[in-house]
Amino acid sequence: MQATRFVETNDGRVGLDQFASRPHDALAAALQQELDAVNTLINEKMSSRHAPRIPEVTAHLVGAGGKRLRPMLTLAAAKLCGYAGGYHIHLAATVEFIHTATLLHDDVVDESKQRRGRPTANLLWDNQSSVLVGDYLFARAFQLMVEPGNLRVLDILAGASSTIAEGEVLQLTVAQDIKTSEETYLQVIRGKTAALFSAATQSGAVLAEAPEEHVEALFTYGDALGVAFQMADDLLDYGGDSAQTGKNVGDDFRERKLTLPVIRAIAAADDTERAFWERTIGRGKQAEGDLEQALALMDKHGTLESTRKTAHDWSQKARDALTVLPESDLRTILSDLAAYVVSRLT
Amino acid sequence: MQATRFVETNDGRVGLDQFASRPHDALAAALQQELDAVNTLINEKMSSRHAPRIPEVTAHLVGAGGKRLRPMLTLAAAKLCGYAGGYHIHLAATVEFIHTATLLHDDVVDESKQRRGRPTANLLWDNQSSVLVGDYLFARAFQLMVEPGNLRVLDILAGASSTIAEGEVLQLTVAQDIKTSEETYLQVIRGKTAALFSAATQSGAVLAEAPEEHVEALFTYGDALGVAFQMADDLLDYGGDSAQTGKNVGDDFRERKLTLPVIRAIAAADDTERAFWERTIGRGKQAEGDLEQALALMDKHGTLESTRKTAHDWSQKARDALTVLPESDLRTILSDLAAYVVSRLT
Repeated sequence: MQATRFVETNDGRVGLDQFASRPHDALAAALQQELDAVNTLINEKMSSRHAPRIPEVTAHLVGAGGKRLRPMLTLAAAKLCGYAGGYHIHLAATVEFIHTATLLHDDVVDESKQRRGRPTANLLWDNQSSVLVGDYLFARAFQLMVEPGNLRVLDILAGASSTIAEGEVLQLTVAQDIKTSEETYLQVIRGKTAALFSAATQSGAVLAEAPEEHVEALFTYGDALGVAFQMADDLLDYGGDSAQTGKNVGDDFRERKLTLPVIRAIAAADDTERAFWERTIGRGKQAEGDLEQALALMDKHGTLESTRKTAHDWSQKARDALTVLPESDLRTILSDLAAYVVSRLT
Repeated sequence: MQATRFVETNDGRVGLDQFASRPHDALAAALQQELDAVNTLINEKMSSRHAPRIPEVTAHLVGAGGKRLRPMLTLAAAKLCGYAGGYHIHLAATVEFIHTATLLHDDVVDESKQRRGRPTANLLWDNQSSVLVGDYLFARAFQLMVEPGNLRVLDILAGASSTIAEGEVLQLTVAQDIKTSEETYLQVIRGKTAALFSAATQSGAVLAEAPEEHVEALFTYGDALGVAFQMADDLLDYGGDSAQTGKNVGDDFRERKLTLPVIRAIAAADDTERAFWERTIGRGKQAEGDLEQALALMDKHGTLESTRKTAHDWSQKARDALTVLPESDLRTILSDLAAYVVSRLT
């Protein structure tokens, strides 16, 4: 029997891990030694001489169920580009620290109560600790990334951090606004998911001093993987098997989130339908049967199907990007990973 | 008639500016041109292509009443060390962004309602915006500091950022604990105030490629200035003229803060006095007349006087540190500034 694994997105939802099967495990196996070194470094750097609350809160999040997908992307990118030094470990730990810091802050922003199947830090301690420990981890991430001494890597990761924060602010300000465009949606999910994926892969390639063509390919791979991943996640909210996804169908609808299938259904809506979306999402006046009606409208306009197609296109884009890199087992695993992300969207 | 000016410490209190008179104004006059360039850069970098909420929140805080003390310290340090390039502007803006980010987060953590005499961002918008815009500014700070391409500068500022967060977490966890030691108090105020002061001055010197002796001197100056500044602030809470300080005597006592005069009074307490502190600070059971009793105990053990003496010692330490640097008007102003910080503690 396979152990249950959890993955989280930045909006605090917990689901059965999309990556629990082969590609993610294959990646972990291929990078086992480096991954051990990353975990050791994380444990070392999350300590604090003066404030024991910091490692307590961090360990709660970092120790539990984190699958290290982002650091693995950094390690894989560096290795794919033939990196022979030791600083990809620092970079991978940096990426995980940035990720952990954003999770801590997101749980405060969203007032989340659960993450990775456990109570959130803001619930177990308080919002103050989550905000400040997040700040600490963010600062530690920057300290760590200074060590390799590569200014372009610093620029990439600092840029990603600002894109992440910008995406979160954008999500906050467009929440429940039924005029949200596809472009805005893409900007939000880039901030929420894809920016750190692409920074993880691109910075690994830059560290390895790969040719510009390979750096660009790995950026594109990370970006497209992140977009496909988040789109699939948003789509499964309306169609996934809750036993498999660990989520309830319609959570996003109840939380009035403007995800792609809804944005497209609103774009295609007639006046009556528009009034429905304005009432349920815009004003949050939801009644029995509204979720079924929302699903029927998405079905009528084919937006679940078209979103599935778009997610597959992004997955394909990620796989295509890899083809400029030399063939290797690692490249195959990364390609499989991109395929796997959308494989449940039948 | 002189305009009223405000200054804030990281714990969100607003008072009449200790620096409103000569040394701060002299510094601003000596650095006018650079300061204008810093303000222009700040306005440019706080913009966001996608999320207008970001410049709105930032402008509310950065635009209003900020006296740019920290960026001025960076500019002054670089100039004192003969820096002839243009990157001290970036560094100064970086320091102000880090400061602004910590203010936004501190106001969330402390649930503050006022800063610089105006409603806080968390009150005008919400906690979410303050957390996320703070994150954005922090990331922008790192992007900005990558530009000069000086890895040691990056290391100093990343290190200061982690000390700031660590100090804040420490303050949170020792709050209302009457066993708090002087050492812990020093650690807390280093995080809260002195770490960014010393990083501001030290990084300016490093950017200028000053000899190590000068770098160290400017670090010590910033550190000691910050410690003296915060100690004076904590002391004035128990003895300042509220018409002059804009604060009410005893705010820290009512908020059960372990500042130096209290820590020393507790260290000297007999059993009865200890029970008093345990009740009023430890358990927060305060009644009419308790503030007067606290003041009487601090007076009995001479802790207001000894704290005043310690603050003066730190101020002197700051001034002494400067003596290794070549004499100049700027050096004199910095020395005056250190003297001014404690000049109200008669």
